[in-house]
Amino acid sequence: MTQQSENTLKVAHQAFENLQHGLATGEWNQLLDMLTEDFNFWFPVGKFHGLNVGKQRAKEFFEYVSQAYSSGLTVTSLDHVTSNETTVVFEFRDEGPFMGELYKNRIAVSFDVRGDKICGYREYFGSDGKSN
Amino acid sequence: MTQQSENTLKVAHQAFENLQHGLATGEWNQLLDMLTEDFNFWFPVGKFHGLNVGKQRAKEFFEYVSQAYSSGLTVTSLDHVTSNETTVVFEFRDEGPFMGELYKNRIAVSFDVRGDKICGYREYFGSDGKSN
Repeated sequence: MTQQSENTLKVAHQAFENLQHGLATGEWNQLLDMLTEDFNFWFPVGKFHGLNVGKQRAKEFFEYVSQAYSSGLTVTSLDHVTSNETTVVFEFRDEGPFMGELYKNRIAVSFDVRGDKICGYREYFGSDGKSN
Repeated sequence: MTQQSENTLKVAHQAFENLQHGLATGEWNQLLDMLTEDFNFWFPVGKFHGLNVGKQRAKEFFEYVSQAYSSGLTVTSLDHVTSNETTVVFEFRDEGPFMGELYKNRIAVSFDVRGDKICGYREYFGSDGKSN
């Protein structure tokens, strides 16, 4: 593994840890601090469906997630991590209370890394929100 | 990149080519020939939602896809390929006619490679089937 690949993996793992922290607690500052100003992200559904541009938009998105899942979401299993020099893909499962039921999903997220920051994020759903 | 990583990438690219061929034409033999007998796959929704085990089940799945999208699906853009020694993730966009409308999606698929075969496949949806 090249030095760049190692750095990319390390930065993405930190971002993933911060993502988990945000999902669980609603505290997003640690993740937001890692985003470049020109950060962009893709999300599959709803109000943030499609391409979203800018760090401010990311802040709105993460706050929206924590409003929707106000009791927090827990990453129950990190199944696969696949990476190259610029991108790291995490395949994981999460769950948490949602509207009186238990939300569960399988998720793939790709982080694009630039230096010690995250410049891109793409989220994909592997299940229907009811099982994982 | 190690020799194993190079082989994994090569095998997965061939599988992805065969997947594209299957989606476009409904001919799945080339992809099926690459699957191990104990092949398993995950799919996000519908009849094949969740974990599916065995090559025969895969055959049924791919035939089902081609029945549902009888005019074929075209991969319009391969955006990211991320890989390690055993797994390759393809992020791409596809589209095709479906029930009188144009189906469009963003997809992530992970192929697990063993030797010159594919032993696992996980599919994730990045959009709602209406845009990509």
